[in-house]
Amino acid sequence: MRADWESILSLVNCEIISVTKSDSLDSYVLSESSMFVSKDRFILKTCGTTTLLHAIKPLIQLVKNVCGFDTIADIFFSRKNFERPCDQIAPHTSFPEEVDWLNGVFGEGIAYSFGRVNADCWHMYTTSPQPHKGVEKPDQTVELLMTDLDPEVMKHYYKSVSMDGKAATKNSGIDKILPKSVIDEHLFEPCGYSANGILPNGQYWTIHITPEPEFAYVSFETNVPLDNYKELFQRVVDVFKPGRTSLTIFANKTSVAKDIHLELADNWETVGNYQRTDFNMAIVKDYNLSYSFYKNTYS
Amino acid sequence: MRADWESILSLVNCEIISVTKSDSLDSYVLSESSMFVSKDRFILKTCGTTTLLHAIKPLIQLVKNVCGFDTIADIFFSRKNFERPCDQIAPHTSFPEEVDWLNGVFGEGIAYSFGRVNADCWHMYTTSPQPHKGVEKPDQTVELLMTDLDPEVMKHYYKSVSMDGKAATKNSGIDKILPKSVIDEHLFEPCGYSANGILPNGQYWTIHITPEPEFAYVSFETNVPLDNYKELFQRVVDVFKPGRTSLTIFANKTSVAKDIHLELADNWETVGNYQRTDFNMAIVKDYNLSYSFYKNTYS
Repeated sequence: MRADWESILSLVNCEIISVTKSDSLDSYVLSESSMFVSKDRFILKTCGTTTLLHAIKPLIQLVKNVCGFDTIADIFFSRKNFERPCDQIAPHTSFPEEVDWLNGVFGEGIAYSFGRVNADCWHMYTTSPQPHKGVEKPDQTVELLMTDLDPEVMKHYYKSVSMDGKAATKNSGIDKILPKSVIDEHLFEPCGYSANGILPNGQYWTIHITPEPEFAYVSFETNVPLDNYKELFQRVVDVFKPGRTSLTIFANKTSVAKDIHLELADNWETVGNYQRTDFNMAIVKDYNLSYSFYKNTYS
Repeated sequence: MRADWESILSLVNCEIISVTKSDSLDSYVLSESSMFVSKDRFILKTCGTTTLLHAIKPLIQLVKNVCGFDTIADIFFSRKNFERPCDQIAPHTSFPEEVDWLNGVFGEGIAYSFGRVNADCWHMYTTSPQPHKGVEKPDQTVELLMTDLDPEVMKHYYKSVSMDGKAATKNSGIDKILPKSVIDEHLFEPCGYSANGILPNGQYWTIHITPEPEFAYVSFETNVPLDNYKELFQRVVDVFKPGRTSLTIFANKTSVAKDIHLELADNWETVGNYQRTDFNMAIVKDYNLSYSFYKNTYS
């Protein structure tokens, strides 16, 4: 099975660095990327000039051949606007090109762009609603994509400052974001950091850090269910102190977070030092989805 | 003053067909377009291959010279995706091009795209928030942009069927949408229809109809304040019976419609024969703004 994953990941330009397994989730730290595999879900998170969409067809084939699964219940593909779109490789040179590619595989889907289409924005593609899908299990995903990062804060993620991944996790305060997690982290040479955290019941979080000042970038993602994510948002921005961050929250109708978008709309205009500059929400199939963009008013 | 308007409208490729004045609003029916002028607001609605943005700089100059006003409180520019983008004239060949043009005049603004970026969607640009603007007057705008129109319904808007604009208004049922309005309408040769309706207190509505089957299109817009627009939505779709329609609602924080987006999110998934396929909302400055897209399930 590992050889199968490796052959798929090679198409995306990713390598497996380490694996952690819990009862319901296998967590892979990849070269500046992460992968999570559970019985009915596959998550691949990449960055840089990886070619994520190249994995889709071989993945469908693998799941069919090895597991005997032949129905795709749902697909979500999302990303922030690229910092340097010209560096990307097809089909990732533009969102419309990615959408055409995905429609070619899955048929006519739904493509939304949230936020400012001429500045910071976030693109999302999903397949059209499937009839007769039945009752959904609770599901939620929260993601922060952070930029304008202070070089002082980013220095933890250099080999010259932190001895190894464990030291970076502790020195930076990442270990306090969701305590009691089993953390599998890696500090790259000469800099860069990836961590996967695992909690019981298939809960995970993942952090990827590119600390170089020219293109500093931090992503945080988790599926931990909470009925209010304000405290978690604050813990994350306290660790990374971004000048700007997006916050996206997906929650389906059986999730404890299902009404979070109403709470967000009314009560999250400022959170600590952060002022919201954009708020969009959408109802997509069984999901409420919101996109917020915040700027640090102290930076 | 009429000569001034005419010179600006000539830049947009529009001509004044008729004018109706009330105590607080001047309403102009133009060639397949409309213009409304009140003390502190200017609305220009065009269609086809008009060049709306060409009017902006001369308009700012005119308002400064004639009225002595020198501060722009707010700007909103919006449109649906074009049916045939290649027919458009610069700067209207793409939304990013329009945004660049607007940013050139007003400085860095906010540009959103609602709905499906690869299919039916709606673009909106507004200027960045102005500090110290003071308390806003109640303000709301509702717009339906309708396509997939039944040729049987569209026949009212041909000279060969309706004698004149008044007959088309009555035969189609347009006069029942917002009764008690003073209606100024025009039926074009050989087909096409425009109407402006005026109500007390600066309230207006406007309808533009392109009935030809190859590119049939109807727009409806009003600023009439209501705390729930469901009945109005139904009256409009009952008259035009579109296969598809967008519904956008803007309401600021002092409007009676300020909470309509919550009502929409929860209770407008189906309205009569219409099934919602997209729902997006945003908070933009003092406005709650929602975009919904509906398909007629009987068509």
